[in-house]
Amino acid sequence: MTRYKAIISYDGTLFSGFQRQPGERTVQEELEKTLQRLNSGQPVIIFGAGRTDAGVHAYGQVIHFDLPQARDVEKLRFGLDTQAPEDIDVVSVEQVADDFHARYDKHNKTYEFLVDTGRPKNPMMRHYATAYPYPLDLDLMQEAIKDLVGTHDFTGFTATGTSVENKIRTITRATVEPEGRPNMLVFTFTGNGFLYKQVRNMVGTLLKIGNHRMPVSQIKTVLESRDRNLAGPTAAGNGLYLKEIIYDK
Amino acid sequence: MTRYKAIISYDGTLFSGFQRQPGERTVQEELEKTLQRLNSGQPVIIFGAGRTDAGVHAYGQVIHFDLPQARDVEKLRFGLDTQAPEDIDVVSVEQVADDFHARYDKHNKTYEFLVDTGRPKNPMMRHYATAYPYPLDLDLMQEAIKDLVGTHDFTGFTATGTSVENKIRTITRATVEPEGRPNMLVFTFTGNGFLYKQVRNMVGTLLKIGNHRMPVSQIKTVLESRDRNLAGPTAAGNGLYLKEIIYDK
Repeated sequence: MTRYKAIISYDGTLFSGFQRQPGERTVQEELEKTLQRLNSGQPVIIFGAGRTDAGVHAYGQVIHFDLPQARDVEKLRFGLDTQAPEDIDVVSVEQVADDFHARYDKHNKTYEFLVDTGRPKNPMMRHYATAYPYPLDLDLMQEAIKDLVGTHDFTGFTATGTSVENKIRTITRATVEPEGRPNMLVFTFTGNGFLYKQVRNMVGTLLKIGNHRMPVSQIKTVLESRDRNLAGPTAAGNGLYLKEIIYDK
Repeated sequence: MTRYKAIISYDGTLFSGFQRQPGERTVQEELEKTLQRLNSGQPVIIFGAGRTDAGVHAYGQVIHFDLPQARDVEKLRFGLDTQAPEDIDVVSVEQVADDFHARYDKHNKTYEFLVDTGRPKNPMMRHYATAYPYPLDLDLMQEAIKDLVGTHDFTGFTATGTSVENKIRTITRATVEPEGRPNMLVFTFTGNGFLYKQVRNMVGTLLKIGNHRMPVSQIKTVLESRDRNLAGPTAAGNGLYLKEIIYDK
């Protein structure tokens, strides 16, 4: 048995998310089907570091899986990449220790969230950025976003009813800035873990602050109160990207 | 009768091109249907400056059309933009002189062509850039592309059998450079007119030069010989963008 770690990217538009669900097209199922073909028809289970939702994209999702034999990793990458559906790409494959676990090994994740502030929006980006065609005060968002950095109880920014018990996470980077292309803003968050819908709820709250419909102190209020009702709406998934995952050594 | 000029952008992926064709989904037909709804059910004909092919995108296509009455142009823009399909956006609408003609009035067009050189390609860009996962020498392409600037007979770069008689055009800008995003190159061409498939054939030739499969002098050879067989293959339409149209005053 040999364990492999792979970095994959995908366009989330036509997927019902990463995780296998009966009757739905998922990244996990498509990759498992591709791996099974490359494994003489024997099933292969993959484990992903992050379970992205429907419509959410990835540049740097990490998965691991086991194959019965050692393979040339570049040939394996090429075979997987060319045989997987065209909305999944396999960036790299490497052999790892048998106890490596994409999900449970300690890591930091970086998410990006793209917002199209154009009026009208960019039609080429309609699946790849969330349209927000309203006035936005970038300075206010840049001030408020700093309050997310640090170790906090993020209960107020996760979906109510989330089963995870410990809602304390550490964010080491939280920024918002022009992305480079016209009318595009990019939010970037790096941390040791994110709760269900946390990034989208943080972005939804920051957009309300930027649009002067919540005070700049609202991030602190939500963190302290742990009250989901005080946060903004969940921003749409089409702007969200799982950008990079860095494992602790 | 009032004449309007509009700048529109569209994602060409799901269109069989700009120009109306029986049984096909085209930008012209979708916009004419939208205008008809806004014109009390009376048909409206639109004229586009450039007839983009299937899969080709636009940020700055220009159209004109007539309506029986004067309208508030921002309300008209908003109505068109919101009622048109989501892969067409209406950037601006203005009232123009009754003799303005989007196609026949003298203008300069700028086209961009995006190439994804990544191995693997970026899955988010698979409809928005042409994948070229082979070695490319940017310096060679930058040297060769200069030969396109000026007034030339572009017969060798158009589709054989094109019915247009005069194949002399002037290119005032021709550049290729990194686009900003990882592994993305952008070709930019500005000129007073482009023949059918000219941009895609120029790009196809430049990529062959960059990949060392044609000499750097090949652009000159194709221009002088006017022989389509000496040019490279037609690059795919998904990397091509009609970027901007500037009318002479």
